[in-house]
Amino acid sequence: MADDLLPVDDARARILSGLTPTAAETIGLSEGAGRVLARGVTARLTQPPADVSAMDGYAVRAADAVEGATLAVIGSAPAGRPFAGSVGAGAAVRIFTGGFVPAGADAILLQEDATAAGDRVRVNESVKSGRHIRRRGLDFAEGAEVLAAGRRLTARDIGLAAASNNPWLAVHRRPRIGILATGDEIALPGDPIPPGGIVSSNAHALAALVRASGGDAVVLPIAPDDTHAIAEVAATAHAFDMLVTTGGASVGEHDLIQAALGGEGFALGFWKIAMRPGKPLIWGRLGRTPVLGLPGNPVSALVCAVVFLIPAIARLSGLPGAPPPTRRVVTAVALAQNDRRADYLRATVSLDAEGQLLVTPAAVQDSSMLATLARADALVLRAPHAPALPAGAEVEAILLAELGV
Amino acid sequence: MADDLLPVDDARARILSGLTPTAAETIGLSEGAGRVLARGVTARLTQPPADVSAMDGYAVRAADAVEGATLAVIGSAPAGRPFAGSVGAGAAVRIFTGGFVPAGADAILLQEDATAAGDRVRVNESVKSGRHIRRRGLDFAEGAEVLAAGRRLTARDIGLAAASNNPWLAVHRRPRIGILATGDEIALPGDPIPPGGIVSSNAHALAALVRASGGDAVVLPIAPDDTHAIAEVAATAHAFDMLVTTGGASVGEHDLIQAALGGEGFALGFWKIAMRPGKPLIWGRLGRTPVLGLPGNPVSALVCAVVFLIPAIARLSGLPGAPPPTRRVVTAVALAQNDRRADYLRATVSLDAEGQLLVTPAAVQDSSMLATLARADALVLRAPHAPALPAGAEVEAILLAELGV
Repeated sequence: MADDLLPVDDARARILSGLTPTAAETIGLSEGAGRVLARGVTARLTQPPADVSAMDGYAVRAADAVEGATLAVIGSAPAGRPFAGSVGAGAAVRIFTGGFVPAGADAILLQEDATAAGDRVRVNESVKSGRHIRRRGLDFAEGAEVLAAGRRLTARDIGLAAASNNPWLAVHRRPRIGILATGDEIALPGDPIPPGGIVSSNAHALAALVRASGGDAVVLPIAPDDTHAIAEVAATAHAFDMLVTTGGASVGEHDLIQAALGGEGFALGFWKIAMRPGKPLIWGRLGRTPVLGLPGNPVSALVCAVVFLIPAIARLSGLPGAPPPTRRVVTAVALAQNDRRADYLRATVSLDAEGQLLVTPAAVQDSSMLATLARADALVLRAPHAPALPAGAEVEAILLAELGV
Repeated sequence: MADDLLPVDDARARILSGLTPTAAETIGLSEGAGRVLARGVTARLTQPPADVSAMDGYAVRAADAVEGATLAVIGSAPAGRPFAGSVGAGAAVRIFTGGFVPAGADAILLQEDATAAGDRVRVNESVKSGRHIRRRGLDFAEGAEVLAAGRRLTARDIGLAAASNNPWLAVHRRPRIGILATGDEIALPGDPIPPGGIVSSNAHALAALVRASGGDAVVLPIAPDDTHAIAEVAATAHAFDMLVTTGGASVGEHDLIQAALGGEGFALGFWKIAMRPGKPLIWGRLGRTPVLGLPGNPVSALVCAVVFLIPAIARLSGLPGAPPPTRRVVTAVALAQNDRRADYLRATVSLDAEGQLLVTPAAVQDSSMLATLARADALVLRAPHAPALPAGAEVEAILLAELGV
């Protein structure tokens, strides 16, 4: 029943189209790294504020500073302490990198091209007008937008916002993501494990992924497979920008989640996605809160989170929410023809002799193997019905380190 | 005076050889992402704990489950609720993904290959012994090390540590990095700017870089260019795993830092590094605390931080502290022959028609241009004396997003 399966790109597009960025908040510059600007940052000063020296040396008049000439040193202009006077004929002012070029001077004589002797300096190499001077506004001018709305701020951007005199920033609030693991059989790490049960790992891994992607993660207590318990959590969904559930998405379980959540708002959709691992997905809305229901299988949950949740958090954060970036890499082993589901092969990455990225998919791709996923550096993309490929062929891969997960 | 200049790799090796990882601390699993393990994580249980079904269907004896046969459904085994009995001849147990395979059964009949009718099920496709069963311990076995000491934990690793029943982790303490900006001429963003002064940007950018690299950043109040003020800060250096200064490293200023810090411990070295931007660097130790003195120029400071500080934080965090990773990319423009200093060209990155990474260095590479650095996606490496290259040639580049800065 191929027509039952929703292509990955269609599913992601539907999810993203239902999301709107969070509102703005004001934060201190020192909290800004990694945040997404809700408003552009405008320079509140001009940098450099005047013509400044790019080097240590002497501010001179180029016409006078010819090889063999001797100039009178009439003062100094270190960074931050402008020389108040003017450089007349035959004069020079000692200057340091960042120092304002004094009135009258039009060039910098490098200190390595000069010989100082008391209050005089000998020119050992002629200078050209304008040399080693950084013009006023070379970096940015007051009033110019130095960082645009919608940009996720790097450490360098923080430096630029600081240098342009902006102690405050308007950014999108971090999306607050509630994470709900469901299941009678799961226990928190270290807690007593019920007979036949397993330790809950999804909520903790997803919380780390949410934080690495710029969201605030709220891990909710585990809900048993019980309509009432799940409905109780659902009633608090309004506190979140998105509710992520894990478990309760397979064929035998989704009726429960559906029934439990259905009472709180619009009906939820149950999608079978044309992907492996991670076929079943719930998508819908409780009141105003979007709900993404991931599979209970840990590998499926994390791969689905890479494919759907990280872009969703990006969109909520004020970014476009693009598909995970892929790189063209070389497969170290032959790959079989793929069936109708997009495959995300867990693979390690190494560098070949020519410095190319080489991927080696794990020999066993069973979706229960969390250790294999943890050891993986990449997810190799195999499109639906992709043909068999020999070792050495190029493939597309998601490099997990690039996503910070 | 080429012999004055210390090669970048030598400088980094000297810095790294003087650093030891921080001691261990115990943290909750939920705080673990991004931290570096001080001790390996050992599985405290076997996963799966028993042979389990990989699919929804029926646990059967393969010998009985031949096409056309009808079996008696004698119970069910959902995940978390093992079936207590045994599957005898002609019997089947309804089973779901993750459910324990009951005694007697040796294969799973997929539900799509079966027709259920009351308490009987018809086999529509013969099954093979062992099919769709995940063996006990397929993922990991109790006692096995699932994550090794020295590993920086990803979201996936958090999942694996949880699944293997580890609520606590022993990790290296985050290195605590004191950041000291010096200079009479600098003011905090929004504060009154002294005549001829500029706004301090380095400390804030460096703090963001330190945090993105796994360190705790402590931004110290700006110290004026005054031996006493700097010495006062130096006396508190013992509180830090490393003290990073910015400013005071150029030729005209280093005597001040040298004099101010020299009284507190071993003498500091002043290095001229064969790199651009970022020639001057201070490296030494105040008591037991390593001190890295970066240039005051914001672009130089940040490039030096990428080249030296990020590896240093990695080493302090318990990682090897490798040079920043580079990738082979293609230059969009011709590059001139390089002089004796390693050059780090600020460049934007795009994808060419074949999906290759294409770098375009900024036309003006002046080291005062913070806006150019903020807009850059990459630093293109030009080795000392690298030959001129035509457009389309391969070069090595540091992709800044990969470093999270």
